[in-house]
Amino acid sequence: MQLRLGAPRRVLVIGAGLIGTSVGLALTRGGAEVFLEDADSGNVRTAVSLGAGRAAPSDDAEIRPDLVVVGVPPVALAAVIATALERFPDAVVSDLGSVKEAVLAELRRRGIALERYVGSHPMAGSEQSGPLAGRADLFEGRAWAVTPHDGSTPEAVSVVEEFARTCGAFVVSLTPARHDGAVALVSHVPQVASSVVAGLLIGAEEDDLRLAGQGLRDVTRIASSDTELWTQILTANAGPVAKLLHEASERLRDVALTLDKLPAGEHAETAPGGGVSVAADRPGEDLRAPLAQGVTGVHRLPGKHGARVEDFVQVPILLSDRPGELARLFADVGEAGVNIEDVRIDHSPGTPAGLVELSVRADTAEGLLHALAARGWVVHG
Amino acid sequence: MQLRLGAPRRVLVIGAGLIGTSVGLALTRGGAEVFLEDADSGNVRTAVSLGAGRAAPSDDAEIRPDLVVVGVPPVALAAVIATALERFPDAVVSDLGSVKEAVLAELRRRGIALERYVGSHPMAGSEQSGPLAGRADLFEGRAWAVTPHDGSTPEAVSVVEEFARTCGAFVVSLTPARHDGAVALVSHVPQVASSVVAGLLIGAEEDDLRLAGQGLRDVTRIASSDTELWTQILTANAGPVAKLLHEASERLRDVALTLDKLPAGEHAETAPGGGVSVAADRPGEDLRAPLAQGVTGVHRLPGKHGARVEDFVQVPILLSDRPGELARLFADVGEAGVNIEDVRIDHSPGTPAGLVELSVRADTAEGLLHALAARGWVVHG
Repeated sequence: MQLRLGAPRRVLVIGAGLIGTSVGLALTRGGAEVFLEDADSGNVRTAVSLGAGRAAPSDDAEIRPDLVVVGVPPVALAAVIATALERFPDAVVSDLGSVKEAVLAELRRRGIALERYVGSHPMAGSEQSGPLAGRADLFEGRAWAVTPHDGSTPEAVSVVEEFARTCGAFVVSLTPARHDGAVALVSHVPQVASSVVAGLLIGAEEDDLRLAGQGLRDVTRIASSDTELWTQILTANAGPVAKLLHEASERLRDVALTLDKLPAGEHAETAPGGGVSVAADRPGEDLRAPLAQGVTGVHRLPGKHGARVEDFVQVPILLSDRPGELARLFADVGEAGVNIEDVRIDHSPGTPAGLVELSVRADTAEGLLHALAARGWVVHG
Repeated sequence: MQLRLGAPRRVLVIGAGLIGTSVGLALTRGGAEVFLEDADSGNVRTAVSLGAGRAAPSDDAEIRPDLVVVGVPPVALAAVIATALERFPDAVVSDLGSVKEAVLAELRRRGIALERYVGSHPMAGSEQSGPLAGRADLFEGRAWAVTPHDGSTPEAVSVVEEFARTCGAFVVSLTPARHDGAVALVSHVPQVASSVVAGLLIGAEEDDLRLAGQGLRDVTRIASSDTELWTQILTANAGPVAKLLHEASERLRDVALTLDKLPAGEHAETAPGGGVSVAADRPGEDLRAPLAQGVTGVHRLPGKHGARVEDFVQVPILLSDRPGELARLFADVGEAGVNIEDVRIDHSPGTPAGLVELSVRADTAEGLLHALAARGWVVHG
């Protein structure tokens, strides 16, 4: 593949973990010459054997990088970036860290020139770790935050942006502080909330957990992520995360306090004739408000291709759990010429049947319903 | 279809919303004679036209039900159950409510005989509502809690259990109080947590939300559920939900307080030589503990067919976003003879490429990897 115009041609990647190795693979695929360095030489050997680049020679003068990318854990970032700026006085230096402001502050405390440093953060990861889990396509179509500080040169910013695009990502440009606030909101606080909800399950009886549905599974999926890495991320972004966690904690407590105040059994008194709405009283309002805010908030999330969640509808289809059923279904969907935005298979403990939900553009749903029904599928609209 | 042995033959469903209509459809499919009643006659007409049963005659003597199933909103449940026990002195009466203890307490306060009443709760729902969204397969393979009280007769319990099985569900038997504690944990508290995290997004800038990944989408998916229904559910299960929400709130606050205590920038000092682990100090431990509890908790959740999450591995595959790609993929998976437990398509704003994660049994993953690679797919193990 040809190099993108303005993209770095010679890149040193320091830290050959999951993300660093994936960067090496993506840049190599993109036509760059990649050198790899890691405190653990086994990581370098693994990354090299996967095709992520070659081991950096011990003489820095032989590397001559346009760009140095630092992909080490949060605790080591500032030190390794500072060293890289010294070792390679002609190179732009960037990093792949999840938090930007604290690292920049630490670099400034060291009193070194930072014109050639521009932070970056690919919004991609995996529940796996290590170079073996590296993938050239990890960043394909993902956001990649690029976070210039007020001393970064435009040339350095441009090199880092082209680096991100070469890896297949699209660039979102933010100040370091703005970035940290954003990831606290969209990533760090959801992670802690997921962990806390999942942590409550420890005390549950086995039978209670048999009542668990897809909702709980979705809320707790990311709770299985790497504990050590997340400890470092939260530590590095302590301020913005703490502020939002206090807010989330208070909102949960407010709901709890509202429930505490309800007279036991009151709810059953209100509708002897079968009326169906909770009286619009104060406790009802105090419960309704945070739920309604959740609806508003979730509808703000952009969908794939920037589309809004509301643009899509769910088409549920029943199918048996035999090999080949999904293939037959998707073949029929393909013949109907309809593109699938998302697929969910509903987990159903103890049964061979499954429910598949296809998410499709609202304007294609009706045609799909008819096409699938005509082919014998049990579909509901 | 023939009736299951011991299953109710004549059933009156009171309340033809999503769940009541789905019960009517499932029982009709199962061979029972179903009568439908609703304060809104339009709901009955819709449910009847879908094949969920026929409109109940105005003379109760003509209905002669073995079983009356009450599927009205939480606020109306106790009153309608009490009336049903009076109207049909020979019938077993059950309900479909999400909360059991408060309704039972209210029935007891009324001083009526409750031998023929056995509560139940199908663990199925939808983000949709109303009879038009009803589906005969809504309960297929789902858990259905049956909650006898100490006055229920064994015969009544048996009728309700067979009713649940006729609808395609598997029975989990619990006391009403135990049920309410379990759903507070696996459903009601996760719902509030999801709503609170989603509610925080209201204040975010558009660009910040472009950094959102699949994790946030998973955590906040159920936040889009019906606000009014959830207000009633939380009200009816106030005690158990409040207790767990206080606990969750405190755990979030503890994490926030730990982060507050961290000296700014400390993290960057600890590893000048590129060492990679946070020192095992007190704040580190206080952050690590809730994250580790989350990992433990999420691994307790049973998977489909009762399998554990650990029995499955993820196989990620890159594919283009053209119609037909998924069909081709699943055809190849089917030919490899491998059964898919779950599918996730990663949302990637701004790009035509997508990443599909197939969840398969660990012992079939390697064979699948080779089969797909041989057919030209970009697969990672």
